[in-house]
Order: sequence, then structure tokens, then C-alpha cells
Amino acid sequence: MTNTRQAINFSEKLAKITDLWQPRVIAEMNDYQFKVVRIEGDFIWHDHVDTDETFIVLRGQLRIDFRDGAVSIGPGEMFVLPKGVEHKPFAEKEVYLLLIEPRGVLNTGHAGGDRTAQNDIWV
Amino acid sequence: MTNTRQAINFSEKLAKITDLWQPRVIAEMNDYQFKVVRIEGDFIWHDHVDTDETFIVLRGQLRIDFRDGAVSIGPGEMFVLPKGVEHKPFAEKEVYLLLIEPRGVLNTGHAGGDRTAQNDIWV
Repeated sequence: MTNTRQAINFSEKLAKITDLWQPRVIAEMNDYQFKVVRIEGDFIWHDHVDTDETFIVLRGQLRIDFRDGAVSIGPGEMFVLPKGVEHKPFAEKEVYLLLIEPRGVLNTGHAGGDRTAQNDIWV
Repeated sequence: MTNTRQAINFSEKLAKITDLWQPRVIAEMNDYQFKVVRIEGDFIWHDHVDTDETFIVLRGQLRIDFRDGAVSIGPGEMFVLPKGVEHKPFAEKEVYLLLIEPRGVLNTGHAGGDRTAQNDIWV
């Protein structure tokens, strides 16, 4: 799936995405996936019991709420969310995000519900 | 090692690095490491037989030479180098790079030699 001889441009990939909260795969490294996603507003509380999850902010300011605090992540910054930690992403204005996590991880963890995005959609 | 409640700023980390070709760990996700590195000039031919390796360019223009071609990667771009592919990074001017690969991967693969950097040094 990964084009082995061409760089992947984040902005070009994000320009092809029109819907919010729908992660799109842009590359794979071993059994991990790189996904870009546009988000705005509130998400739901969830966790990923089996894996850490990495957030790299490409544009905007992301806040991740925890049950006992929050972290703010801006452009040029990353954050590794440890597995099992309940969290809720929030973006007051639109945020462009790069996610890195193992193949098969759902955006809602095991919380499920109508905010669950389809997996393995490439852009 | 990873501070679980604070964003990691790439520029701040890179500002602490003065030597070239010495990757420094800034975060871990499961058994993977995120490393920042400043490079300029030529590296050696090598490969990583057991794992893919991800390059994200933060500043400058990186070229990765293959035995049968090359790829150019600029700011806001990434490239996943498949395992087992011989390659040689090259930066005509200084490049700031984010590397993602499993813990324990050496910068020279199994080529060894005096360009091999010490592993697991955090910044």
C-alpha cells in the first residue's frame, strides 16, 4: 500500500479529506499505521486498553482531557497517550492531526457508538 | 520515561542537540521510539533487515539514496523505508529529522563502523 519511493505530504493528504473525525491511513510501518484526521469540537470519552497512541499536531491546538487533567498540543508538538488512560480529544477550532497506532485500533477504543469511524480507509 | 501529561516540542528538543548524526530519544510508544536528529552531509550505506523505519522531515530537504534511485523528503513530509532496503541518507544543508522505529534499532543497521551512534540516549 505504501509507495516506497515517494514522500507523503501531510497537507496534500489532508486537503483530500472533507469530513471531520474520520481518520484516513496514509502509510504503514510494520504493523503500525499513520493516519491523518481533521477534528473540531468534542469527542467521546474512551481508552485503548492494549496500546499507546501517538498524536502529532500539524495545525491548530488540540486539547486532550483526562479524568484528572488535560494536555494541550500545538503544531510541531507530539504526545504519547499511554494505553488504558481514559481521554477525550477536544478542538475549539479545527485541528489537523497525525495519529500513529497499531493497525486495527478503533478511534473510539472499546466505547463504540455512532462516533466510531470505519478503519483502514486510505487517502 | 515519557512524560504522560506534557506535549513534546520538536524544536525545543532539537535546540538541545549540538552534534550531527546522533539520534536522541524524545518519546516511546509501546516498543517504538521517537528520535530527533540533526544531519548534514553524507551517511553510509546500510539497511535494517528486521524493521521498517519512518522519516519525518521537520526542517530542510532530505534525500535518501537507494541503489536504484532516490527519494526527496521536505518539511511536512514523511517516508517509510521498507525493511531490508539498502539506503544512504544525504542532506546538502542541515536537516532536522524525526525518526520512528522499534527500540534497539541502530542508525547504521548491521553495517557497523565509526558512524554508529549510541542508542537510547534521551534528550
